[in-house]
Amino acid sequence: MKKYIGVDIGGMSVKIGLVNENGNILDKKVVKTEGDADSVIDTLGNALKAFLKINGLTAEDIVGIGIGSPGAITSATGVVEYSNNLGWRDVKLVDGLKKYVDTDYKISNDANVAALGEAIFGAAKDFSDVVMFTLGTGVGGGIIIDKKLYEGNESKGAELGHALLVMDGEECTCGRKGCIEAYCSASALIRDTKRAMLRHTDSKMWEYAENDINNVNGRTAFAMARENDPAAAEVVENYVKYLSESIMSYCNIFRPEAFVLGGGICGEGKYLLDKVIAYCEKGHYGYQGTPAVKIITATLGNDAGIIGAAALLV
Amino acid sequence: MKKYIGVDIGGMSVKIGLVNENGNILDKKVVKTEGDADSVIDTLGNALKAFLKINGLTAEDIVGIGIGSPGAITSATGVVEYSNNLGWRDVKLVDGLKKYVDTDYKISNDANVAALGEAIFGAAKDFSDVVMFTLGTGVGGGIIIDKKLYEGNESKGAELGHALLVMDGEECTCGRKGCIEAYCSASALIRDTKRAMLRHTDSKMWEYAENDINNVNGRTAFAMARENDPAAAEVVENYVKYLSESIMSYCNIFRPEAFVLGGGICGEGKYLLDKVIAYCEKGHYGYQGTPAVKIITATLGNDAGIIGAAALLV
Repeated sequence: MKKYIGVDIGGMSVKIGLVNENGNILDKKVVKTEGDADSVIDTLGNALKAFLKINGLTAEDIVGIGIGSPGAITSATGVVEYSNNLGWRDVKLVDGLKKYVDTDYKISNDANVAALGEAIFGAAKDFSDVVMFTLGTGVGGGIIIDKKLYEGNESKGAELGHALLVMDGEECTCGRKGCIEAYCSASALIRDTKRAMLRHTDSKMWEYAENDINNVNGRTAFAMARENDPAAAEVVENYVKYLSESIMSYCNIFRPEAFVLGGGICGEGKYLLDKVIAYCEKGHYGYQGTPAVKIITATLGNDAGIIGAAALLV
Repeated sequence: MKKYIGVDIGGMSVKIGLVNENGNILDKKVVKTEGDADSVIDTLGNALKAFLKINGLTAEDIVGIGIGSPGAITSATGVVEYSNNLGWRDVKLVDGLKKYVDTDYKISNDANVAALGEAIFGAAKDFSDVVMFTLGTGVGGGIIIDKKLYEGNESKGAELGHALLVMDGEECTCGRKGCIEAYCSASALIRDTKRAMLRHTDSKMWEYAENDINNVNGRTAFAMARENDPAAAEVVENYVKYLSESIMSYCNIFRPEAFVLGGGICGEGKYLLDKVIAYCEKGHYGYQGTPAVKIITATLGNDAGIIGAAALLV
């Protein structure tokens, strides 16, 4: 059975996993990282060497090493051009790691990798054409066409959070106004929750936040909407609308077989998913007379980064 | 050299062309059509037989027959499920035509076919990943990935005019509010021109329309903006903004190498194109630090339908 290494790069640590062709993790290691890119490459390169050795493997025994990283990446060159999260600029990550373990490398950004993992091994493994949102601090996107990742020119496509939802709307981190990210991210949800609390000083959300607006997080409105607080319910209703309208636009653009929702906000589970499906069903998934799109939540969880990175080599 | 037949179905007539592998039309015929779908199939089937014969060809001499048709089509089955324009519902077009000329058939909707034609033989022939808007009464879309048409599940994707631009905005023909089509189509431009004229009774647009608002068409605002009429210039400026913001969203989604603009409104040529390019350049084509997208106008003109339909077989 073929074996792959999946690497999930984060701000403070890197996860390394040995993955088989069924997408199962055979062994896993978390490595703390610090310092500049050269230090991270040295730490990671040595960790990869040690990880192979401890598993009784050499570079010849694996298909290759797949990497998911935050930031703007050109897959073809293996360069992380810019990552705010990592503080990196023009880091030749693949060239650097090859000096430690000489094998085939594939790299893509974390949202792409998450989508590919779900499409190959996770929630969408029965579908060929899949679109995914990762609903975190921002809104990441991934496009899978015929089971393959679509990245666009210089891997700079699939920025699905940066299509407009409301022209001239809320400011987005990208510089435009009214992007999907400016309405559907956790940051946007927190902004809207705070605004609703300031308008409704009697809302139960205040109690949940221990009367300190700085304690508001992405769960505040959902938690109190479940308790039938009207102001919280309105925040959730609006969030469902923003998210569902965005999904319906992508249904019209791609008409995928499945649309996968991942990221922190999906911790709301069935409560959120049922509302989104009901909204999209009512809206004919964007266009009357077209096939329905299965809207599902990601299933790979915390290991999504490792498994998705390994999937780059499948 | 390989030979293809391209068929461009319209509401009143069908164009048939013999196309070579360079995308050149060797012979062309326009056939008037009337009556129900069975009559159109009979007329077209007989015309195809006669067209091959007059060109000294049999079904064996051609690669096949490609068809572009308005409406909702499932390419895999060759069925036109619904076309408002043709008044058709569940018409088994390919099965019907096979009784007249037995060869390979490929079919897709007219906007897809236009995009494929431009990507294979036209303005975007040097690019692999291409997105196209056909700016007509509606806004049609086409997606080319790695030189191949992407149609989505049951060929119901690539409805690029039906992604939101302004949530809760202008009513769209599809039932949603605020679609790109509701801002960038000729119908939308005419609506906005009329509104501007009603607000500005001194606008030169009244003169251009012979003082009858029913004479307004998609050229009215552009013609008078060129003459520096302020009200007309504002309509054009807004139209450029709607179109450019839509293009930038698609740059972020697909990051294609080229974005092609076709359809009637592109008759405005360089005047419109220069404004759109300037807007998108200023907006970093959606996202700072990403590769610029070449924004170009379609070049196949009136023969786009025939050549694009033939390209389905390439």
